[in-house]
Amino acid sequence: MLKTPCIIINLKTYQQGYGKKGLELIKGLEKASAGHKGQVAVAAATVDIKYFSEKGSLPVFSQHIDPVGFGAFTGHVLPEAVKEAGAVGTLINHSERRLTIADIGAAVARCREVGLISCVCTNNVDTSAAVAALGPDFLAVEPPELIGGNISVSSARPEIISGSVERVRTINEKVKVLCGAGVKTGKDVAKAIELGSSGVLLASGVVTAKDVMAVMKDLLAGLE
Amino acid sequence: MLKTPCIIINLKTYQQGYGKKGLELIKGLEKASAGHKGQVAVAAATVDIKYFSEKGSLPVFSQHIDPVGFGAFTGHVLPEAVKEAGAVGTLINHSERRLTIADIGAAVARCREVGLISCVCTNNVDTSAAVAALGPDFLAVEPPELIGGNISVSSARPEIISGSVERVRTINEKVKVLCGAGVKTGKDVAKAIELGSSGVLLASGVVTAKDVMAVMKDLLAGLE
Amino acid sequence: MLKTPCIIINLKTYQQGYGKKGLELIKGLEKASAGHKGQVAVAAATVDIKYFSEKGSLPVFSQHIDPVGFGAFTGHVLPEAVKEAGAVGTLINHSERRLTIADIGAAVARCREVGLISCVCTNNVDTSAAVAALGPDFLAVEPPELIGGNISVSSARPEIISGSVERVRTINEKVKVLCGAGVKTGKDVAKAIELGSSGVLLASGVVTAKDVMAVMKDLLAGLE
Amino acid sequence: MLKTPCIIINLKTYQQGYGKKGLELIKGLEKASAGHKGQVAVAAATVDIKYFSEKGSLPVFSQHIDPVGFGAFTGHVLPEAVKEAGAVGTLINHSERRLTIADIGAAVARCREVGLISCVCTNNVDTSAAVAALGPDFLAVEPPELIGGNISVSSARPEIISGSVERVRTINEKVKVLCGAGVKTGKDVAKAIELGSSGVLLASGVVTAKDVMAVMKDLLAGLE
Repeated sequence: MLKTPCIIINLKTYQQGYGKKGLELIKGLEKASAGHKGQVAVAAATVDIKYFSEKGSLPVFSQHIDPVGFGAFTGHVLPEAVKEAGAVGTLINHSERRLTIADIGAAVARCREVGLISCVCTNNVDTSAAVAALGPDFLAVEPPELIGGNISVSSARPEIISGSVERVRTINEKVKVLCGAGVKTGKDVAKAIELGSSGVLLASGVVTAKDVMAVMKDLLAGLE
Repeated sequence: MLKTPCIIINLKTYQQGYGKKGLELIKGLEKASAGHKGQVAVAAATVDIKYFSEKGSLPVFSQHIDPVGFGAFTGHVLPEAVKEAGAVGTLINHSERRLTIADIGAAVARCREVGLISCVCTNNVDTSAAVAALGPDFLAVEPPELIGGNISVSSARPEIISGSVERVRTINEKVKVLCGAGVKTGKDVAKAIELGSSGVLLASGVVTAKDVMAVMKDLLAGLE
Repeated sequence: MLKTPCIIINLKTYQQGYGKKGLELIKGLEKASAGHKGQVAVAAATVDIKYFSEKGSLPVFSQHIDPVGFGAFTGHVLPEAVKEAGAVGTLINHSERRLTIADIGAAVARCREVGLISCVCTNNVDTSAAVAALGPDFLAVEPPELIGGNISVSSARPEIISGSVERVRTINEKVKVLCGAGVKTGKDVAKAIELGSSGVLLASGVVTAKDVMAVMKDLLAGLE
Repeated sequence: MLKTPCIIINLKTYQQGYGKKGLELIKGLEKASAGHKGQVAVAAATVDIKYFSEKGSLPVFSQHIDPVGFGAFTGHVLPEAVKEAGAVGTLINHSERRLTIADIGAAVARCREVGLISCVCTNNVDTSAAVAALGPDFLAVEPPELIGGNISVSSARPEIISGSVERVRTINEKVKVLCGAGVKTGKDVAKAIELGSSGVLLASGVVTAKDVMAVMKDLLAGLE
């Protein structure tokens, strides 16, 4: 299981986040996080999972898995393959890669079977409550309208985080809530933790930053 | 709100279920259900909602709506239009027309706004629990492997019905559970009610039956 | 078959385009087009096809069909049902309702079987050429970036229309090309015809206009 | 560019086709194909592209790419990343991973930009003709009803191969046609070549075979 509080950095398909450049970025994140108490992880494109897992020391999540098994599923992401390549977990149902509810349930179940940490993305308090009933390890609340923006959900809509934490607790208290969308600074992180979350999921704020090290150190400071 | 116990008959795109033939079928269902205490409704293709609502006396559900509003949504099913055409409610997320969890949440919310009864289909106990958190009026549990078959879920997998009823009660006791998949006889219906459901959702068992009246009377007897 | 040159007005899910208001709009279009040589048709939501066909006199297209037949296809649009309800044709693959290439091919074939005019939407010269090989009655080229905007494709990117007309002619000369996206004025229409198209497909320019009659008369004048 | 005639083996998500076992399979294929004139390639899950490219000597295709660029596309397959990982080409629109026609066109264009060989799957003569207009390097005709079966399309429906070859030639003579679905033996391969194709795309016939070496040698003999 991933230690908490944690910061998961979603590399998406950013130019800075794949292949050799992606590995350099990860090396920078490793350095920045050394000595900090927060756990840092990256969510990588499947094509880079093995490379980043072997050459880097940060835990690697997949950005997506399909709820399939062995067989005739061309172009799908097999949980077993992602696990063997070195991933410790996976995002599921990111707003840029939505799944049906049946598939989310099946994907969470497949993660349990093969030993991957599941982190399901949601978009509001109701869907957070719904996903909690499926029993993933984490869920990350990300109001789509705030993704990629400059205002953190923890500032703009704190009630979505606190409301999700509260509803999730009633339904399945083992599910940890992460705060996504618009997180940029240590202050945003501190606020997210204060609202009851176990960490943050963020992307552009780190990956496309001019000074990745500085941003990362600031974010980690927010956990302390 | 739809009275319960109820029997919702999904006309799908069966040859017997659209246009003039569909209306004849509905007239037969009306006759068969006269004097019985169970509420009968049909889920029609959008193209027939107005026709069936005006010419028949059974409540008409849509088989699907899209969580959209006024605007540029070519080929989508606008909740307001379905309502104006005479529908009293709609199925959402049928196994033959799955939605993402964000869209299910939004579709349930749109139903509330325009005054349509929402009935969300689920496929197992976990997804029933998840959907309950979204607060629809009804949910219909239909294990996909039993849909269209000859064995009722209430006989083959009674624990899916009783388990759904129980989990749903914990999460949102206002949500009524229907039993779907494989229901064919009054005995299946009686069993479904005994397991705690508020009725059944079925399709081929009625729509493609040789003697629709007889089948319908048998099903309704199961409610008494 | 639809007479050409033609103007197809896509009602989408605009507030002005469904139910009673939609019928009023159609009555206005009928009046505006009386005495003009161009053929006017509307593309309606499935829920309104029967109503608009019976109460109005303009030919009605569906905004979408699914390439399915009789059977278990909940929430799908059956070509036979659309035809029985009074539609003369259908849009296929609108940019707001994309299909796979296999499904476009199957939908065009289903239109031929049931006697519906098929009009497949494309987004550039290459996809126009591709669709021509599937043999629909019409194709409508609509660069997505211009849809809903104020600049007509016939002005902004005339080479997309002339290029489509040319490529389509090489592959299947029976397929007629319509010009979509951004058409607002009679001048745009005249330009579209000049570039070799058989008419236009448009939406917001008419449906959301303050003075629908005036806009429609202007568009029709562009055909003369 | 891939030499022809060629045999592309789609590893799908078969238990024998990913990670360490997948590499062993590839090593066997290399041995079997040594000294034969036909070109053998594998289509791998993205997660294995780098591993198979570095440790094996057969050209590696991706099973899928998304028509996206750098940016916010979580869980998507970036063409640049697949290329950097060592892939020489990619399947597009496999029947188990269908795309819209707009996306197929865009994916073929992206392949040209980054230098990947594109191989678009089709399901009949009409869609083969349509895809030819998009100008991929290869297309592979696979009638879905024959995929995974025991009867080769070249025996069961030879007119689909010859018809595709003929129509494709008229539209874009640079596009090479591969024969997919149900290919099992050297005789099937020989027949496919005789019908005008440039090779075959197959999966279960090799990947799940008891004696992979023997099957592979038989297939390659069909090219001679």
